Amino acid sequence: MSIHEECGVFGVFSSAQTNVSDLVYYGLYALQHRGQEACGIVVNDDGLFYSHKDIGLVGEVFGGSKLRDFPKGNMAVGHVRYGTTGGSSRKNCQPIEVNHQKGKMAIAHNGNLSNAYELRNKLELTGAIFHTTSDTETIAYIITKERLNAPSIEEAVSRSMNILCGAYSLVVMSPAKMIACRDPYGFRPLCYGKISDGTYVIASESCALSAVGAEFIRDLLPGEILVFSKSGIESRKEHCSTKTKKTCIFEYIYFARPDSKIDGVSVHKARKKAGHILAECHPVDADVVIGVPDSGLDAALGFSEKSGIPYGIGLIKNKYIGRTFISPGQETRVDQVKIKLSAVEETVSGKRVVLVDDSIVRGTTSGRIVKLLRDAGAKEIHMRISAPPFLHPCYYGTDIDSEEHLIACKYTIPEITEMIGADSLGYLPKEKLGDLIESTDYCSACFDGEYPTPVMTNIPKNKFEQKISEAK
Amino acid sequence: MSIHEECGVFGVFSSAQTNVSDLVYYGLYALQHRGQEACGIVVNDDGLFYSHKDIGLVGEVFGGSKLRDFPKGNMAVGHVRYGTTGGSSRKNCQPIEVNHQKGKMAIAHNGNLSNAYELRNKLELTGAIFHTTSDTETIAYIITKERLNAPSIEEAVSRSMNILCGAYSLVVMSPAKMIACRDPYGFRPLCYGKISDGTYVIASESCALSAVGAEFIRDLLPGEILVFSKSGIESRKEHCSTKTKKTCIFEYIYFARPDSKIDGVSVHKARKKAGHILAECHPVDADVVIGVPDSGLDAALGFSEKSGIPYGIGLIKNKYIGRTFISPGQETRVDQVKIKLSAVEETVSGKRVVLVDDSIVRGTTSGRIVKLLRDAGAKEIHMRISAPPFLHPCYYGTDIDSEEHLIACKYTIPEITEMIGADSLGYLPKEKLGDLIESTDYCSACFDGEYPTPVMTNIPKNKFEQKISEAK
Amino acid sequence: MSIHEECGVFGVFSSAQTNVSDLVYYGLYALQHRGQEACGIVVNDDGLFYSHKDIGLVGEVFGGSKLRDFPKGNMAVGHVRYGTTGGSSRKNCQPIEVNHQKGKMAIAHNGNLSNAYELRNKLELTGAIFHTTSDTETIAYIITKERLNAPSIEEAVSRSMNILCGAYSLVVMSPAKMIACRDPYGFRPLCYGKISDGTYVIASESCALSAVGAEFIRDLLPGEILVFSKSGIESRKEHCSTKTKKTCIFEYIYFARPDSKIDGVSVHKARKKAGHILAECHPVDADVVIGVPDSGLDAALGFSEKSGIPYGIGLIKNKYIGRTFISPGQETRVDQVKIKLSAVEETVSGKRVVLVDDSIVRGTTSGRIVKLLRDAGAKEIHMRISAPPFLHPCYYGTDIDSEEHLIACKYTIPEITEMIGADSLGYLPKEKLGDLIESTDYCSACFDGEYPTPVMTNIPKNKFEQKISEAK
Amino acid sequence: MSIHEECGVFGVFSSAQTNVSDLVYYGLYALQHRGQEACGIVVNDDGLFYSHKDIGLVGEVFGGSKLRDFPKGNMAVGHVRYGTTGGSSRKNCQPIEVNHQKGKMAIAHNGNLSNAYELRNKLELTGAIFHTTSDTETIAYIITKERLNAPSIEEAVSRSMNILCGAYSLVVMSPAKMIACRDPYGFRPLCYGKISDGTYVIASESCALSAVGAEFIRDLLPGEILVFSKSGIESRKEHCSTKTKKTCIFEYIYFARPDSKIDGVSVHKARKKAGHILAECHPVDADVVIGVPDSGLDAALGFSEKSGIPYGIGLIKNKYIGRTFISPGQETRVDQVKIKLSAVEETVSGKRVVLVDDSIVRGTTSGRIVKLLRDAGAKEIHMRISAPPFLHPCYYGTDIDSEEHLIACKYTIPEITEMIGADSLGYLPKEKLGDLIESTDYCSACFDGEYPTPVMTNIPKNKFEQKISEAK
Repeated sequence: MSIHEECGVFGVFSSAQTNVSDLVYYGLYALQHRGQEACGIVVNDDGLFYSHKDIGLVGEVFGGSKLRDFPKGNMAVGHVRYGTTGGSSRKNCQPIEVNHQKGKMAIAHNGNLSNAYELRNKLELTGAIFHTTSDTETIAYIITKERLNAPSIEEAVSRSMNILCGAYSLVVMSPAKMIACRDPYGFRPLCYGKISDGTYVIASESCALSAVGAEFIRDLLPGEILVFSKSGIESRKEHCSTKTKKTCIFEYIYFARPDSKIDGVSVHKARKKAGHILAECHPVDADVVIGVPDSGLDAALGFSEKSGIPYGIGLIKNKYIGRTFISPGQETRVDQVKIKLSAVEETVSGKRVVLVDDSIVRGTTSGRIVKLLRDAGAKEIHMRISAPPFLHPCYYGTDIDSEEHLIACKYTIPEITEMIGADSLGYLPKEKLGDLIESTDYCSACFDGEYPTPVMTNIPKNKFEQKISEAK
Repeated sequence: MSIHEECGVFGVFSSAQTNVSDLVYYGLYALQHRGQEACGIVVNDDGLFYSHKDIGLVGEVFGGSKLRDFPKGNMAVGHVRYGTTGGSSRKNCQPIEVNHQKGKMAIAHNGNLSNAYELRNKLELTGAIFHTTSDTETIAYIITKERLNAPSIEEAVSRSMNILCGAYSLVVMSPAKMIACRDPYGFRPLCYGKISDGTYVIASESCALSAVGAEFIRDLLPGEILVFSKSGIESRKEHCSTKTKKTCIFEYIYFARPDSKIDGVSVHKARKKAGHILAECHPVDADVVIGVPDSGLDAALGFSEKSGIPYGIGLIKNKYIGRTFISPGQETRVDQVKIKLSAVEETVSGKRVVLVDDSIVRGTTSGRIVKLLRDAGAKEIHMRISAPPFLHPCYYGTDIDSEEHLIACKYTIPEITEMIGADSLGYLPKEKLGDLIESTDYCSACFDGEYPTPVMTNIPKNKFEQKISEAK
Repeated sequence: MSIHEECGVFGVFSSAQTNVSDLVYYGLYALQHRGQEACGIVVNDDGLFYSHKDIGLVGEVFGGSKLRDFPKGNMAVGHVRYGTTGGSSRKNCQPIEVNHQKGKMAIAHNGNLSNAYELRNKLELTGAIFHTTSDTETIAYIITKERLNAPSIEEAVSRSMNILCGAYSLVVMSPAKMIACRDPYGFRPLCYGKISDGTYVIASESCALSAVGAEFIRDLLPGEILVFSKSGIESRKEHCSTKTKKTCIFEYIYFARPDSKIDGVSVHKARKKAGHILAECHPVDADVVIGVPDSGLDAALGFSEKSGIPYGIGLIKNKYIGRTFISPGQETRVDQVKIKLSAVEETVSGKRVVLVDDSIVRGTTSGRIVKLLRDAGAKEIHMRISAPPFLHPCYYGTDIDSEEHLIACKYTIPEITEMIGADSLGYLPKEKLGDLIESTDYCSACFDGEYPTPVMTNIPKNKFEQKISEAK
Repeated sequence: MSIHEECGVFGVFSSAQTNVSDLVYYGLYALQHRGQEACGIVVNDDGLFYSHKDIGLVGEVFGGSKLRDFPKGNMAVGHVRYGTTGGSSRKNCQPIEVNHQKGKMAIAHNGNLSNAYELRNKLELTGAIFHTTSDTETIAYIITKERLNAPSIEEAVSRSMNILCGAYSLVVMSPAKMIACRDPYGFRPLCYGKISDGTYVIASESCALSAVGAEFIRDLLPGEILVFSKSGIESRKEHCSTKTKKTCIFEYIYFARPDSKIDGVSVHKARKKAGHILAECHPVDADVVIGVPDSGLDAALGFSEKSGIPYGIGLIKNKYIGRTFISPGQETRVDQVKIKLSAVEETVSGKRVVLVDDSIVRGTTSGRIVKLLRDAGAKEIHMRISAPPFLHPCYYGTDIDSEEHLIACKYTIPEITEMIGADSLGYLPKEKLGDLIESTDYCSACFDGEYPTPVMTNIPKNKFEQKISEAK
């Protein structure tokens, strides 16, 4: 319940002037689960860029008349972002806009570079200044530098891909072109579709294509560059197949929406499959299977299907608790989990319950959910997790944390079982991850530490924030 | 998807000064589903009242420092309200506060009077002036008038109950007492519980007791008055058993939260039972049963249980679409239902689908959901509704509308089936409603027109707003 | 610098539908000095009332799209209010709206009743309930009660004038009529003018007529009722000449804008005259005369004219310090007066300065201004006050406070001179007040205690707020 | 009334931790007249920077709890900015913050570079990217580039001064030092003072020193660099006296506050002197001299002193009309000038009036003021302008516009006199400008076109915004 994807991107290219901002707005609504901290839209009206970005959900940032203030245009790009909270992070909002005599540019980015530290150091030593602490500004610099001598913006993007390392699904908008690109490992998803002849959309997930009524065409290949312009769509594949595909397996398990398909595989199906595997590997005699809403429901249904134990609705999520929830202070000792989740006594009272969730990070929330169910009368609680234990930080665009905060790095499974108060606990075996998507081409570094690229493990993940305070 | 409960109430009484406003805040969060338009809290600090009320969700209205601005106190009362939108309705926010030499009073009300028009006319002819168009102000007047000659506030409430007719679950706070009362028909729920010795809470639904960690004691009896004061809790039953209990059956079908129990019956269980009945009365040969989230899920599970057809997750609700959703305008033809709901292709493609929802009001939304599923590849769609058709307006605190807007008043079931594009359609039989709660003591006037009290069917429901424009 | 008028009123009547809300908006801007705490507008569109009221300046409350949300109409009434701060006072915003079967009504009021306490007590004993703590609600009740048996709204207003006692300049809007009335003493100003044939405006001060381009017609007579309707303008004079005119003299000295005329007398001229009198009664050998901006400037110019001592610009007021000024806390010891006022060294350094202000309330501010000038090098500072010393509270619509807070009630003039650090101090002699307006018909109760009506001196001015906390 | 200064800067250095943000807040309030569009504060707490910047007045941006959210610190820098309106300009807010491994830096800038275009082009060709369209970002780049090889931040600033050309008064904050510098021409003012031993403040104008209770020490010399650090204050003068001082004469005439002194000359005195000169050069037989508030008042008083014609208060400015004034739309034809200014009939009716203002830009406002006075009964209106006619755009930090918008570029003085409806019109003679400050070292390029530095007159002033739209 506390792991976050860091971004979602969305782009529209139309051969005619239209309400491109409305389309991006709808698209971002459908991608909101990928980032709830901030969002932004940049509209391109015949070469002039109009932007609005702020801290807040899509509905908050573009409420009032903000959306109507945009002109029509033939291109637009949007972004939703998860990040640290606080007013000052407003400058980290995306898309990033660059003013440069070789051409204005707006960039929306999902992912994290694994060589950002090194690249930024080099750039700073040439006199570059940075306004933000995000990798995206580094990408903007690299593309701009390459642009100085490149015959076209897409060539500059292509050359930059020789320099950038790590996870990056990008949408880059120039005055006349829209360029989508996915890094050679394909860490993060990126796909495109068609609304009508001449009107195309690019999105982090296919659910956002459906939201705007677009027909899904296909996922970008790892390493592919797609160029949308008045001359049509051009695909550049010079970076394709230079690496083995390493799509983040946790996109399937948790980040993506169940109605999305990534690289041909239904997210909902992958999650149900995880439930099947759990039922096989960690069977248990029980009366009901329930899921932790929302992301544990699909796997719970899968567990029920395979085990034959009836599926139940055992936990209700308060749908009004959003970013706006203010805890009124320490003095009133009301369990926060009780505000967000409540047990359905009818379902669990006197029952042996299988409880399915997608992950255990620190264990605190799991412990509280177990207690909630016991208070509602559950006789036994058997926890099943639709992922292996987290053991390593992620360097490719999620906030899976350093070892010291991960419960599985410090305790054995029996210890964790006791800590959370469950009667039994079973994780998805690491070796079975491939079964979820019927492929072995995925990144599972957070579970096994096998990072596809070199990573600077001795540098904290919030490296740039830290550096600033050190330099005096 | 478009019927609304009109209110939820919450009260706290504590023998010691404490953060009563925090408790009400948590309680209102749990009751938010009963009213999303406005909310308010009044805190009683040793006889001084402090209030904050505004248009907006609980998290919006009490965000920032509003909650911390309240002093501690030993009593507080809160309210969530559904109503017509617009800035001017701020004056209709509750709790209503009355300044009077016989004692200040704050009132929170759930329900609607059926003799409000008549009472208000009489009051106006004695010179009374009204600031709002809500029945609650009429209740405040009646109690105040009775208070002039009554020895106590609870006696004034009791005498008022001889005058008030219709649905009213009230929490009334005086400088020294908290009074809860439920009308003799018990149209709306009201229950109370205990946090610790001397600290009691009153709430529209039991889910709000759980949210603040209170132990459920019991529902109020229809006609009961409960008085919380320094001398303890006193129950007055002189209005009990004067009428047959007529609790709103639609509370079970749709309004209440599934984790609540009302008068001893689990809402979740009642909904699953509705699914069972549908499976028996309208059986169909199909591959999967899905529910329209959130309120159709329980009945869908019940249908699956009874029919043996597998339960599936076929529709995903965008949890970020709230009150903040702004439609950007007519020009961009994006189906609004597509933004709120999306189909899981994996679940429905190529399948014969049983689709369970709680009601059909105008039919538009149902038609769009059916289309969504067809677009996702569903082969057949059999719609099952966990309630009988709406045929009559409600005068007891919900916004079930007048006949001209109800599809079932104008079309036959085969016509509706065709209009929404389903392959078959089955409603819950009216005669089976009692099975949901194993009792015959309920109000089902919206289905059968049998109003427990006299109602003025010739007066439009928004009577006071109208009257204003007529009088020139 | 800390005495406040409590209100300003504005009304428009037009025989044709027009943007009446815009006119009221401009009018309230011009009357903003009469009340900065809250404001409101009610538009009458063919009998339907649309209102918006809130805490804040006119520009804040009607910023955004609030003004455009009003429909056109043929009448509108507006109000600016000074009052105690805080969110809860939102309910005290005016105009007050009354829904009643005898006809809807909106009331804007400037003044204070001197028999409000008595009237409210009587009303409460008949069962009336009050939502606010303002006298205006009492007026609304009285008019409504009279309306029950009166043949017309204007007759109800006229009958109410037999009951209401004290200061009240009212604008009352019914579905079809606009009624202006001024109490028989004429405590507060009220005038009307004409924009074009059929379009009339009523305002607290003539400056607001100019602001909307209206031609001044005349002040209302004390006791006069003016009725604007489709049949034209009718003047009812049955309450005229029943009392001696007692217009508040402090309107001329401080409250009103210098470009207004009240009852034929220019406010600017009255203030200059005060300066002349001060120069005659408290002459001094000095180098420069300066005024405390803004309200001391006219009298300073008068002093200079009469004395022959040059007029100078010696104090600059920071025009950006408004309601929004937030003092950052106690720790930083920055003199607040220094933020609001600064001395022009060039003007005062090495000079003997005559400093003219309109009043001394508690003395603190005056002392700080004297220090500011000394720090800027002034050699001598001779303070002259364009009013007599405050010795008594006001019961007619201003916040001149009770004796214990008025410096002149506790100290002699030599003591005050020393306390504020001036070299000499001279007040306007009480006997000369009539010279300002060349009439003896004024109220100067705050200076001499001669209240034109009975007042309940034993009841605190914030009587209703207090009562509430006592009644338990 | 429509010429704007573009910025004000303020800095605090303290040897001990203190509420530096409060001091900057007060200082910015006193400098608000130099920029009303946006503002910002950056606090340095032992090397960590905390910032808040936004569109709005100081009181708006730092209202609520924003100010209290800052930690204590030993340095802080602030900025007020005038600029084009609109949400997107939020990114142009200052102080600019730079994250760089050679050390973090915050920069506040008043002025405009005359070689910005050239510098930015060069930088872009090395791959630099720009987020804003302001010169300040160019300055940040130049200093950062120099910093790479410089032994200290102050040395980097000094080397940058060889590259930067035009107007720049800067406050630069590094983790350990505060650096103030004024360009070698001294176009814009900059001074410093002392609050107590070890606590120093830097400000655009001396009025801001008074506001925080600081003792004025002196103005910075043109070309001077002042370094505040734990080792004390160091003055570097290597750029001093390399150019002739060219302080903007319009600072005295209009921009600065009358209570400020710039380079030893009182602004109030300079303005009164302008009045004296006007009385000598353009004498007229009249009854009263009035000024257009606020900036015309000092010169009007000077005119009165020299001519012997009495000074009067003839125009009142509505002090509530701020940034918040919303014009409700075109349909209601209310003269906007009437909302902002009103005539005092008592002063002008039947009189021959000398009307003193500081400038005529397009002539529209002047025409309306003349009409306002005629409507109030003025018999003759003789306009006197305390500056020469604007004939050339300003490239040094104000928004004096290009020739096509300046009335004096297109019409003769008799023509202008007729256009605005005055009886006579007299400007301050260009040759007399030096008399205002008793020096010939000033810039009067907007009057005479003699730019002290090369300027690119063929490049529009909003060059960077334009460039963006051209590059496709």
